[in-house]
Amino acid sequence: MRVAVFGASGYAGLELLRILLRHPRFELVAVTSEQRAGQRVGEAFPALRGQLDLVFQASDPGRLAEGIELAFTALPHAAAAPTVAALRRAGVAVADLSADFRLRELPVYETWYGAHAAPELLGKAVYGLPELHREALRGAELVACPGCYPTAALLPLAPFLRAGLLETAGLVVDSKSGVSGAGRKLEAGLLFAELDENARAYQVAAHRHGPEIEQEASRAAGEAVRLTFVPQLIPTIRGILTSVFCRPKRGLTSDAARALLAEAYREEPFVRVLPAGETPSLSAVRGSNFCDVAAFADERNGTLVLLSALDNLVKGASGQAVQCANLMQGLPEQSGLLEAALAP
Amino acid sequence: MRVAVFGASGYAGLELLRILLRHPRFELVAVTSEQRAGQRVGEAFPALRGQLDLVFQASDPGRLAEGIELAFTALPHAAAAPTVAALRRAGVAVADLSADFRLRELPVYETWYGAHAAPELLGKAVYGLPELHREALRGAELVACPGCYPTAALLPLAPFLRAGLLETAGLVVDSKSGVSGAGRKLEAGLLFAELDENARAYQVAAHRHGPEIEQEASRAAGEAVRLTFVPQLIPTIRGILTSVFCRPKRGLTSDAARALLAEAYREEPFVRVLPAGETPSLSAVRGSNFCDVAAFADERNGTLVLLSALDNLVKGASGQAVQCANLMQGLPEQSGLLEAALAP
Amino acid sequence: MRVAVFGASGYAGLELLRILLRHPRFELVAVTSEQRAGQRVGEAFPALRGQLDLVFQASDPGRLAEGIELAFTALPHAAAAPTVAALRRAGVAVADLSADFRLRELPVYETWYGAHAAPELLGKAVYGLPELHREALRGAELVACPGCYPTAALLPLAPFLRAGLLETAGLVVDSKSGVSGAGRKLEAGLLFAELDENARAYQVAAHRHGPEIEQEASRAAGEAVRLTFVPQLIPTIRGILTSVFCRPKRGLTSDAARALLAEAYREEPFVRVLPAGETPSLSAVRGSNFCDVAAFADERNGTLVLLSALDNLVKGASGQAVQCANLMQGLPEQSGLLEAALAP
Amino acid sequence: MRVAVFGASGYAGLELLRILLRHPRFELVAVTSEQRAGQRVGEAFPALRGQLDLVFQASDPGRLAEGIELAFTALPHAAAAPTVAALRRAGVAVADLSADFRLRELPVYETWYGAHAAPELLGKAVYGLPELHREALRGAELVACPGCYPTAALLPLAPFLRAGLLETAGLVVDSKSGVSGAGRKLEAGLLFAELDENARAYQVAAHRHGPEIEQEASRAAGEAVRLTFVPQLIPTIRGILTSVFCRPKRGLTSDAARALLAEAYREEPFVRVLPAGETPSLSAVRGSNFCDVAAFADERNGTLVLLSALDNLVKGASGQAVQCANLMQGLPEQSGLLEAALAP
Repeated sequence: MRVAVFGASGYAGLELLRILLRHPRFELVAVTSEQRAGQRVGEAFPALRGQLDLVFQASDPGRLAEGIELAFTALPHAAAAPTVAALRRAGVAVADLSADFRLRELPVYETWYGAHAAPELLGKAVYGLPELHREALRGAELVACPGCYPTAALLPLAPFLRAGLLETAGLVVDSKSGVSGAGRKLEAGLLFAELDENARAYQVAAHRHGPEIEQEASRAAGEAVRLTFVPQLIPTIRGILTSVFCRPKRGLTSDAARALLAEAYREEPFVRVLPAGETPSLSAVRGSNFCDVAAFADERNGTLVLLSALDNLVKGASGQAVQCANLMQGLPEQSGLLEAALAP
Repeated sequence: MRVAVFGASGYAGLELLRILLRHPRFELVAVTSEQRAGQRVGEAFPALRGQLDLVFQASDPGRLAEGIELAFTALPHAAAAPTVAALRRAGVAVADLSADFRLRELPVYETWYGAHAAPELLGKAVYGLPELHREALRGAELVACPGCYPTAALLPLAPFLRAGLLETAGLVVDSKSGVSGAGRKLEAGLLFAELDENARAYQVAAHRHGPEIEQEASRAAGEAVRLTFVPQLIPTIRGILTSVFCRPKRGLTSDAARALLAEAYREEPFVRVLPAGETPSLSAVRGSNFCDVAAFADERNGTLVLLSALDNLVKGASGQAVQCANLMQGLPEQSGLLEAALAP
Repeated sequence: MRVAVFGASGYAGLELLRILLRHPRFELVAVTSEQRAGQRVGEAFPALRGQLDLVFQASDPGRLAEGIELAFTALPHAAAAPTVAALRRAGVAVADLSADFRLRELPVYETWYGAHAAPELLGKAVYGLPELHREALRGAELVACPGCYPTAALLPLAPFLRAGLLETAGLVVDSKSGVSGAGRKLEAGLLFAELDENARAYQVAAHRHGPEIEQEASRAAGEAVRLTFVPQLIPTIRGILTSVFCRPKRGLTSDAARALLAEAYREEPFVRVLPAGETPSLSAVRGSNFCDVAAFADERNGTLVLLSALDNLVKGASGQAVQCANLMQGLPEQSGLLEAALAP
Repeated sequence: MRVAVFGASGYAGLELLRILLRHPRFELVAVTSEQRAGQRVGEAFPALRGQLDLVFQASDPGRLAEGIELAFTALPHAAAAPTVAALRRAGVAVADLSADFRLRELPVYETWYGAHAAPELLGKAVYGLPELHREALRGAELVACPGCYPTAALLPLAPFLRAGLLETAGLVVDSKSGVSGAGRKLEAGLLFAELDENARAYQVAAHRHGPEIEQEASRAAGEAVRLTFVPQLIPTIRGILTSVFCRPKRGLTSDAARALLAEAYREEPFVRVLPAGETPSLSAVRGSNFCDVAAFADERNGTLVLLSALDNLVKGASGQAVQCANLMQGLPEQSGLLEAALAP
């Protein structure tokens, strides 16, 4: 099954290449990058030297569509939509890693991201969180892969919302992210000298992933959910560690909360519910497609604490995109994704 | 003014030595460490080589009390109380960095820390947060220096509680701490190979600093405050970055929240209220006695987000202890504490 | 093909498990650890949770030998020899990751490591550097997997020594290693708070890998080689970056040096010779079995600079052990080892 | 004594501000930055918020010269020379942190840096390494503060060269530097995501500090010295750890080497010679003006290993500039520089 990666020179793109190299069924036949067109992959990414015999080419979705069955688009938002539209017109299935097809309401998209180049496709994309939307993903032709923060927040939270156990206003999501989530941007705040031994919140209650989390949390709850999302940068390359704070409508013990998670994810290959007392850690998921989740009830204070850890480039981006693509193409969902975390 | 440091071989002790070396009025005449007795300070701590001509001695508070006017005790909890008691009996003023005199109610102490060796002193200690208790600290003879997390949580939170603006139940404190807060303990989880590129929560809603924050928050509010405290370890040596999530009783804008902080801390030498849109960062306070605070209101969701950053070894421990000691001895409060943060 | 790992609870052991999980031919049937006997692998190593359904058992080589064809021994030196001897007596092929069978001369071993429990096997072990000793490794029954530093130094150096191009005295090896090379030892110097933002040399010209490098360098040269080995600790978890400084007997350009390396490693699957001007970096090999090498001649000063980078837990330990085991068992040498580096 | 900092918005500039804030005699009256002109210092550098009430101004050396007695110029090379020339014409003493006046021979400068805007001043600058040129620095009016790498290499090496104990060809300097040495440049290779857990050599035997080290080493030796300089980037913000490898002309023990260093630096306030067996570490000098040095002889291999550690922004740049300025102005050499290292 021939696939291409559009926008392969960012971190999510590089991670896609790393995963696809070992995928048993997807054959990577083309990679695009405007900036690196003409360069060999191994020159651009020393980590892949000697592993992948391809040359970056400028994007030309119409022409490239002919030789492929599936495309991964890892372009910046706004840049992704026209490429996706062209690929869809040519009949190519697309797993899009950008934000362009995640929000279902055009006005919400426009508020947070600006004009949309292919609004007609908004309603056709499936939100690519297999744990919530697996059936819709099977055979889907356009998948909007979730943001890294939404994946991290929704996996521990959704089972409680689905069960109707939580107050749906006043939720709080406090996420700590490694810096690769910001991509390879040349910003002073992302320099090693500025970030090592440092940490800070940013876009407090004003980050674009906030409305995305609310959209999907509301779908899970069956009613509007309101939450305050605070992302923070910590000095790691990969990984998102998330705390979700919520209020149970009635008494809920830690054991009951954990049991509910365990039940919800019993068959899931990539969600691990931790035993009592254990907390998720980034090192346990680094480089892997796992998301580890845990629940702690503070009954004294009427507060339920949900914790999760994932690798933002894998389960938060490229691994999840491959997981979705496996479902889209009728392959075993775990294909190419069974690697254990790199620890220590 | 002659001073001694009891328990000088941990990180808080080392930081005390670093600060006292440059203090204009305190003369450091003795340092104790059971483990390093007989060793020169510069051998134990290469950073201080050639800077401090002292030898660690075994603790003997009765004998050492004769030559000093003030003692800093940086011993583990439970070990501190008898030393403090002996020093007080000998008439020496004590700034205690342990947890032994922070909690005012003996049963609360016993619940979290076990038996107390000098319960009669519990009521006599002043809680050493100058921004809240300055007058009581002037001339005090026994000061319980606050924990690092409580300092980080209380400074942004107390002004709002004092003003009666917040619901007093359902508060949440999510703190991210550098690893020096755990001291120099030989635990696998504190090894570089385990912690770099890693992060995790620990003692979720079950950390000893939780009741300490509640005690002082309740004093500030004038009524019982309930909060859920979740500490997290991030891969930095120093620094605590804290988010406090709370619910205003009535509408409160970001501007109004920031104005209230600015008013509360207008004259404070070590609390900096950040301008609109800026968030505290660890690098801006590293090695300094500053605590930076900021406020963001998410009115949509009825949630106020308070943020703070401090260096857990300085404003969270040894710097604050010196600040208290300055007040105890009638010195200018900033003596020895004006160093700028080490950035980058 | 059934295999076991003896001493699976250290970092090299954990890395073996990670690799063997995905190996197409080796089936991992037993893992031993005295310290963790009775614990499930996934409890001890959260990174492997849900991936490997085995319980650590106490070591009993005689009994375990019955069910396996090959054993990896990842025990500390001195502890390894008796286990290896027992396994060999039971007819099990052994890839030993300890230092016990690397040095060919007993007196040299005794000088650096103390008494040897199975000196009769010293002469029977093949030194497990496939790039130098591939033919001897095919079908070998006891392989001494090289130290991490020797692998890093010998791969760039050996081709020049074999070609007789270098002065054989006065060589210098300056290596910078991540901390996982020290294992999971509970030492103050390995704590995150001591090591982040830090670096230092240790065991200057007195490290046990010095004589090992000299032994193999001398074999490559066909005459005694003398070198000064200086290891240094840098704040990374994984990776060794090595500079070898040597003096060509006669003029040697950078191009000629690079050509010689390229020729030597043209067919090698795991050694990548970098193009002119590029330098090896740890991130390009992290988590992979590659060793990247480069050469720079400073003709002005009669000095040749050889550089290498590898992951000490993979090509410097467990990956190389699997590479050797593949050769021992007649499998394709790259089996289970084709993963790309984890970057960023 | 009124001073100004020209080019205060880079890391060396920021470090100058941090030091000058606490200097007992220098009063900082002006700071320039083209890029940040009009911005308050505390807005540009959150670490200095509330500490320094100055506004960056565009550089105008002629006008600013009127109000000051001494200027620190921390501009990029080539940009520094005209500013320095203007300040000198106006009679202002200058401590220049750029490379513009370090190399004494114009052709050498032109080879490595290009055209020089004020070649007439080349011969008038004193090389600002107080341990080698203290007398010339007293009362000097133009000082070329050394590069960070040259300071790190020359301090351990010069005493041996002065004593004529070493072969003067074939020396090797292998330095590992934190990333702040590269300044605040927006380069992909300096991003946290690229550099954490990474290390690499760069400009092998082709770095501009090579000829500077050779120049001063040759002056110390009284004859031409040839060395190969290999700089490496390690994942720390601050600090340079250096190995110098050299060949004694005749037998030299570790003890004799250490004794020679101890004798050379007995009275030096900022060079610490470590006791037998100890190695310099970055954490022992972080944020301080110390340079720690050590010597190890490998007599077996005719090689002497010299090690040093310093903070590139302090002893390698701004601290050393202040040390020079103190000498230039007849102040106690240690003024403003007595802070202990920030450890942990």
